[in-house]
Amino acid sequence: MTNRKHNFSAGPCTLPFEVLEEAQSEFVDYQGAGMSLIEMSHRGVHFDAVADEAMKMSMEVFEVPEDFSVLFLQGGAILQFSMIPMNLLHNGQKGAYVNSGTWAKGAITDAKQYGEVYTAWDGAENNYSRMPSSDELQMQDNTRYLHITTNETIGGIRFAEWPDVDVPLIGDMSSEYMARPIPWEKFDMVYGGAQKNLGPAGMAVVFVRKSILENTNQNIGRYLRYDIHESKDSMFNTPPVFPIYMFGKVLKWMKKEGGLAAMEAKASKKSSALYNAIDQSDGYYNCPVEVASRSHMNVVFRLPSEELEKKFIAESANEGLLNLKGHRSVGGCRASIYNALPYESVTALTQFMEAFRAANS
Amino acid sequence: MTNRKHNFSAGPCTLPFEVLEEAQSEFVDYQGAGMSLIEMSHRGVHFDAVADEAMKMSMEVFEVPEDFSVLFLQGGAILQFSMIPMNLLHNGQKGAYVNSGTWAKGAITDAKQYGEVYTAWDGAENNYSRMPSSDELQMQDNTRYLHITTNETIGGIRFAEWPDVDVPLIGDMSSEYMARPIPWEKFDMVYGGAQKNLGPAGMAVVFVRKSILENTNQNIGRYLRYDIHESKDSMFNTPPVFPIYMFGKVLKWMKKEGGLAAMEAKASKKSSALYNAIDQSDGYYNCPVEVASRSHMNVVFRLPSEELEKKFIAESANEGLLNLKGHRSVGGCRASIYNALPYESVTALTQFMEAFRAANS
Repeated sequence: MTNRKHNFSAGPCTLPFEVLEEAQSEFVDYQGAGMSLIEMSHRGVHFDAVADEAMKMSMEVFEVPEDFSVLFLQGGAILQFSMIPMNLLHNGQKGAYVNSGTWAKGAITDAKQYGEVYTAWDGAENNYSRMPSSDELQMQDNTRYLHITTNETIGGIRFAEWPDVDVPLIGDMSSEYMARPIPWEKFDMVYGGAQKNLGPAGMAVVFVRKSILENTNQNIGRYLRYDIHESKDSMFNTPPVFPIYMFGKVLKWMKKEGGLAAMEAKASKKSSALYNAIDQSDGYYNCPVEVASRSHMNVVFRLPSEELEKKFIAESANEGLLNLKGHRSVGGCRASIYNALPYESVTALTQFMEAFRAANS
Repeated sequence: MTNRKHNFSAGPCTLPFEVLEEAQSEFVDYQGAGMSLIEMSHRGVHFDAVADEAMKMSMEVFEVPEDFSVLFLQGGAILQFSMIPMNLLHNGQKGAYVNSGTWAKGAITDAKQYGEVYTAWDGAENNYSRMPSSDELQMQDNTRYLHITTNETIGGIRFAEWPDVDVPLIGDMSSEYMARPIPWEKFDMVYGGAQKNLGPAGMAVVFVRKSILENTNQNIGRYLRYDIHESKDSMFNTPPVFPIYMFGKVLKWMKKEGGLAAMEAKASKKSSALYNAIDQSDGYYNCPVEVASRSHMNVVFRLPSEELEKKFIAESANEGLLNLKGHRSVGGCRASIYNALPYESVTALTQFMEAFRAANS
């Protein structure tokens, strides 16, 4: 497809081209069934196979141990902000949160409705330019979990080192999902919206340690209960059929491309190329994030003036480099370089950055 | 498409064929944008136009007055079972529910977690074979709303006449959404899952009277608050992009086909043909639903024996008449004949029913 653009959107975002083509080819008549997959009962043989494979592949590709289950839920990562404390906090237990930026703040806001919550470390003091080290975390007694946003999509920071604490971690991985291995023994839950690395919008993928479901709160609405979803293999109600189907195809693509190790290596290579272009620009481009906390997925940078940033965003779009505008809450520029973004797109961007600097210094 | 089957699935279910073909044609490259619609930012110009049109068209096609807003949410109708009492019941107000079957029972179960709830009429006594008349409803003081399941997908019953009570109605219309006009002045909310008449699974469409949002509970997680979704035009978080897009196309198809009046007339014609085939079978086929409460969307019927039902389901499938098995909780047969099911499919079914009876009497 000659028209295909370089898509740096923060999400929904670029998906593997071959996955899109395959989905298109079978969209109207799924495998000769005489109907589209989206017209089928979610309890029929075709979709059952699709969902089952997506579940198995997600465990395999993300290298998840067997004492975890995967759930396909709705409401995005944001509904998880409520479901986590609703299900997990009781008997005066506290939820600890790292306030690392926009998404962490959202998680804290919602959690406060459902339990006692405290901020174990607050990034506001340094304008969310880095993640904390383990010895900076101020943990309190009777803490049920430490919630972290492993990668902040808007601020462009990530936990390079996992926190070392005495309580289980819960990680919102939305914007770096399946782009790096994680130490499962530290986690009770890992969750995130699908619309970055996993597929189309409309689904949250949740990995939950099975043993904790024996002790979750049951005095809440059924859709909000992890134990119910788990016991029904995410078929308690009609699941988000199309995102599950697409997720399965993306997982197959990830596996074919070399799995988690390959995704991590590719992310490292792409982000290094971009950060190098920034760091070697004699200060023309500037990344406000401390080096050790730099995201491998969302690369944020500023230009010498807001005027130049506007010009940069407009001219890059003309060159087919789309969605480089930073989040409206922080301004500047942001290149989201998720798993499916080809290295060629990063090369095209660094070349454009160089040319733009030469023309606008 | 010569292979296309007659799809009587209760949901997800048959969608307009031309909608599927159109979506397929623009799936990989949306309107020359150089990317798929599902790869685009939900805050970009393309999707903004898609969502805006779907909202406007849904108000137009469903003939919704301007003092209502439409919300595109996730979690299916089932999450609404929790959100309704969470948002609406306070200060000791009660929620009244008509227990008309499986779905109503679910709504009652969840509502009990969030407020004082009572059953204004219980269909269990007559095995859920009919809906109540208004004078059968036992309303209590201090009732905030009467919740009804306007059509029970599993039991195959519907409210032919709307309840006449002194409190606002809230209607779960999932399985007869946009298949009949409703008296908006009686309702504070109408909601339902999209995966029957509206589009693919993964979205709940909620129509809410704007004035009630001034007084909803704000001490709940943000995703669960109607007022927030309404104030953000359903863009509080990443919405279910693909279902919204498909819903817009289905709405255009509905409008082109003649709108709500045409949908209602078609449903009446299709369901009459099927009920006639049942009633004129000398008792071979039997509909357990009282005539006045018969659904125009989900036609349930029994055969003389479970053995014959199994045979009927197997042989009909061989003839390309799919998904005629009743819900696993009640058995028997069920033909779901939603808006997009062509009349020809009903004709094919009634012909098959006649032939099957002749061969198996």
